[in-house]
Formats: sequence, structure tokens, C-alpha cells
Amino acid sequence: MPGNTAAPKTLRARVTVMPKPGVLDPQGKAIAHALGNLGYAGVEEVRAGKVIELDLHETDPAKAQTLAEDMARKLLANTVIESFRVEIAGA
Amino acid sequence: MPGNTAAPKTLRARVTVMPKPGVLDPQGKAIAHALGNLGYAGVEEVRAGKVIELDLHETDPAKAQTLAEDMARKLLANTVIESFRVEIAGA
Repeated sequence: MPGNTAAPKTLRARVTVMPKPGVLDPQGKAIAHALGNLGYAGVEEVRAGKVIELDLHETDPAKAQTLAEDMARKLLANTVIESFRVEIAGA
Repeated sequence: MPGNTAAPKTLRARVTVMPKPGVLDPQGKAIAHALGNLGYAGVEEVRAGKVIELDLHETDPAKAQTLAEDMARKLLANTVIESFRVEIAGA
């Protein structure tokens, strides 16, 4: 559509990486402990992970999803101890 | 409702913490560089943040939201350089 509307040229992929269930999560444990020290009761479990937002030169959400999953498997997540999921949004 | 349905006794809060726009993000830069080295072209920008999942002894989503935002401001995020958002889901 040339003219007055600009199609997005990039898509944003959000890769969320979390420790797998059963894997020790010292960062989560430390946060739970610190919250207790600050007086917060009623915190049952805390798990800490990371999120990586990637702006990709890609206009097809399905391709962006595949690409981001590939990046997650090869670099962003250690799939032995971490699971990941990918969400795609316009950037 | 006593009997055959068990209401969830905890709610899961997901706190996502990202570097604010304009704040240097060395981890994101390192990931972008590593993706380039692995042969991925077309990666425009990468930002790395963290995600903390908290299982809270709380049944009211609005209260859980307020509690998690309070925790984020006091402990989980450094609001000088990081922004955060809170999502609530049943756990």
C-alpha cells in the first residue's frame, strides 16, 4: 500500500527464558528470601528468568516466530536447564 | 463453593523488568553481536531484561497487582534505569 500508511518493516519477538521445573533457581530463592526480609508474607514461590526483545527485519509473523525460536535454541536459552517461549508483536 | 471445585488459593504475578529507553544495555548489545557472529542478519535491536514470576497467597487479582507493583518498586526493579510491568494470571 504505497502512500499514506507505512507498513511495519520490523517485527518484535519477545523470547522469555525460564528455568525448567525442578531445576534449582538460586536467583528466585534469593528474591523470595529478600521479599521475606522486607516483610512481605504470602509469597509461595519465586522463579527468575530473562526476557530478550529482538527487533527483526521480517514482515511475516510466522517466519519471525521460527527465526526467534531458532535463535533461542542456539544462543538465548540453555535448553538442558531452561525452557523458552516466543511471542511476536509489531514493533 | 465447597465441594467439587477448588478455587485457586494463589495468583501468579509476572513482573517484567526492562532497561528504560536510552539506558545502555550491554547484555542486549552482546546478544546482538553474538547473533551476528552466528550468521543471523536482520537483527535491528536487542534489549535484555528479566522476568520474575511470583506465586502469591492472594485471591483478588487487583490486590495481587498492587502487591506485585509494590515489590517491583522496592526490590525487583531499579526504577532509575529500569521500567517494569506486572501481569496477573491464576497459578
